[in-house]
Amino acid sequence: MKRRGFIRNSLLSAAALAVGRTNSAEAASGVLQIPEWTKRLGSGVGTEAYGKPSIFERNVIRRFLPLIQPTREASISFCPLQDLHGTITPNGLFFERHHAGTPKIDPDVHLLVIHGMVDKPLKFTANDLMRFPSISRIHFVECAGNGALEQHGASHNALQFTHGMLSCAQWTGVPLRLLLEEAGVRNGAKWLLSEGADAVALARSFPLDKAMDDAMIAYAQNGEQLRPEQGYPLRLILPGWEGVANVKWLRRLEVGDRPWQTREETSTYTDLLPSGKARQFTFIQEAKSVITSPCPERPMPGKGYFSIEGLAWSGEGKIKRVDVSFDGGRNWQQARIKGPVLDKALTRFQIDWQWNGQQALLQSRVTDETRYVQPSYKQLRKVRGTDSVYHNNAIQTWLVHPSGEVENVQIG
Amino acid sequence: MKRRGFIRNSLLSAAALAVGRTNSAEAASGVLQIPEWTKRLGSGVGTEAYGKPSIFERNVIRRFLPLIQPTREASISFCPLQDLHGTITPNGLFFERHHAGTPKIDPDVHLLVIHGMVDKPLKFTANDLMRFPSISRIHFVECAGNGALEQHGASHNALQFTHGMLSCAQWTGVPLRLLLEEAGVRNGAKWLLSEGADAVALARSFPLDKAMDDAMIAYAQNGEQLRPEQGYPLRLILPGWEGVANVKWLRRLEVGDRPWQTREETSTYTDLLPSGKARQFTFIQEAKSVITSPCPERPMPGKGYFSIEGLAWSGEGKIKRVDVSFDGGRNWQQARIKGPVLDKALTRFQIDWQWNGQQALLQSRVTDETRYVQPSYKQLRKVRGTDSVYHNNAIQTWLVHPSGEVENVQIG
Repeated sequence: MKRRGFIRNSLLSAAALAVGRTNSAEAASGVLQIPEWTKRLGSGVGTEAYGKPSIFERNVIRRFLPLIQPTREASISFCPLQDLHGTITPNGLFFERHHAGTPKIDPDVHLLVIHGMVDKPLKFTANDLMRFPSISRIHFVECAGNGALEQHGASHNALQFTHGMLSCAQWTGVPLRLLLEEAGVRNGAKWLLSEGADAVALARSFPLDKAMDDAMIAYAQNGEQLRPEQGYPLRLILPGWEGVANVKWLRRLEVGDRPWQTREETSTYTDLLPSGKARQFTFIQEAKSVITSPCPERPMPGKGYFSIEGLAWSGEGKIKRVDVSFDGGRNWQQARIKGPVLDKALTRFQIDWQWNGQQALLQSRVTDETRYVQPSYKQLRKVRGTDSVYHNNAIQTWLVHPSGEVENVQIG
Repeated sequence: MKRRGFIRNSLLSAAALAVGRTNSAEAASGVLQIPEWTKRLGSGVGTEAYGKPSIFERNVIRRFLPLIQPTREASISFCPLQDLHGTITPNGLFFERHHAGTPKIDPDVHLLVIHGMVDKPLKFTANDLMRFPSISRIHFVECAGNGALEQHGASHNALQFTHGMLSCAQWTGVPLRLLLEEAGVRNGAKWLLSEGADAVALARSFPLDKAMDDAMIAYAQNGEQLRPEQGYPLRLILPGWEGVANVKWLRRLEVGDRPWQTREETSTYTDLLPSGKARQFTFIQEAKSVITSPCPERPMPGKGYFSIEGLAWSGEGKIKRVDVSFDGGRNWQQARIKGPVLDKALTRFQIDWQWNGQQALLQSRVTDETRYVQPSYKQLRKVRGTDSVYHNNAIQTWLVHPSGEVENVQIG
């Protein structure tokens, strides 16, 4: 009731607020004016056997950065987080990161082979896997390089580019544990190699413990088969772990006793520390959050009441709390977390703001169920230095100008 | 562990089972054979700024029935439930039901007006509503006419047509209660009228109690703005209530003291009883379930282990349990319900089956948290007779033939 009263007051008091108020005559006239589209039949069903968004939403698309990524095949497309709502990312807007482009795979030919330190090697098509009991889980996937350029300063004045290597879907597939139990893992096995069927045969090592915990061989995403750019027909899902470890177009899993030291876990996807040594196998995407409204692409529409919204996520589990600062981290207020709060899934938060039209420094800071607290840039750099480009989970600052414009800045 | 052992045994014993087993030499050869798509670069990012499914999934589409629905504008497209996984329906496959086609609405011009028995009439664009605190909820929408033709016998040998006027999405929007509190509902008000901006100005009455409970003015669906055929830019969501009451292209809400007796709640969407009287304002889609695999479009691939999967839902709340029969309802076994179990949302169930290749009559029966049990056709007809075409929530029977083919039959 307190919140409701707050909104009502702001509606009544803020002349600049374009929301809602009218008088009976205006409302009646709004009701009586029959719009053009009500005067004629619309388009029939089946016009789109597979539907598309409204043409008025044509700017809600994935985008890439041509200057930074000279080839399209080893590139990134960023998810338009500034235009999304809720916690599910539509498949058509799920961010892409490819090392050699998206292969066009015939699912009746594609095989997943499980071999190495197992009693019985196994092979499956996607259709074979659909005979097994399936699980469906909502999990985010975030590239380890999300925010990489931000580590050296506020590089992009756009949420889509600062945080857009992040998406979330309901994944359906078979628990990897079930398949490994079928194959019979031999004593001494401790690691697996996952390899994709793309032109770089992207390969990563991961521990057997994760495979036996919550790893999944996914064939579906948000209800339908995986999209080609998300690994059709099969991908590995390692919930909460860096995107590259969720190998797409999965063609084999080899069981072994030590990591393989592939390219993607030695020359890349490691964190170079001030000592000159690099952290390796830093799989987990630690707790992170960002305010999505307002943001550079979604400026403040005017003074008065505004509902600040944002996303929080943690590779360690569930979100416990989110705090928001309006003054660059000096003072914090607890935000409202919107349920259901799911394990290793995007979670929405909200906090009311009565904007007086003055400059503000907006920040959000998440705490996950392990009590890990999202760090500031200062705290992150103290531990990791300035050469590391992966696993940037620092607090984001949006500078709100009196004009309502929102600017990406780095403080603290 | 018991279930795992069961699967392993069946894998080892059933020669017809195409899943999994191989030997080391085969597996090695599978690993060594480099497929064509690994030998060349794939397509680059941004090839599809808004992505599409794999071309190998081109048959996963919405379908309509030309003979039954002579015009496309007042028609239905059915959701391909047989090809879907998990509980989220992709927006491109969400079923459609229009009475005058899909209007092409400019969101900057479209207004929602709240008027009638209120202190302050209000008007909003979709953008205005985005300044309010939002909620995101996963809810199914089912047409009251889902399974209508089935009430007179097994009409269609396809899950897509027996149950496909059903879909589920994460809806984001503003609680209607919040807007009504802003408007100030006058004493004596008990009903609302919701009217769409399509060419029939589709209108339905609904009680104020529902408006103040969990009704939502939705602007987003599965993360992005509503699709045109789902009401872009604004629709009413009345969780768990018949699809037609979830008015699309919502242009006004009028507050009053009695129902308006519109066309869609008098001449249609009522349930004609044997007495000659009709049940009216039967809003709630009562508990229902169906086995989605196997089904006519997804026959049994052979003897041996098979994971039977299905969907359950209830307009009254959460699913409590699902039972499955293999012999047309004589004996029942409890299925495993897959979490998270959400209020008025599609819920998946699963049960193991060791098929011996003989004829079987598969059924599922759901019980919701109110302890309401899904009825048989016999039970339903005892109460409703045979003239009612709406709100068919009877138990579905699939006859599995020794060939593996699955046939839609009605028994009991």
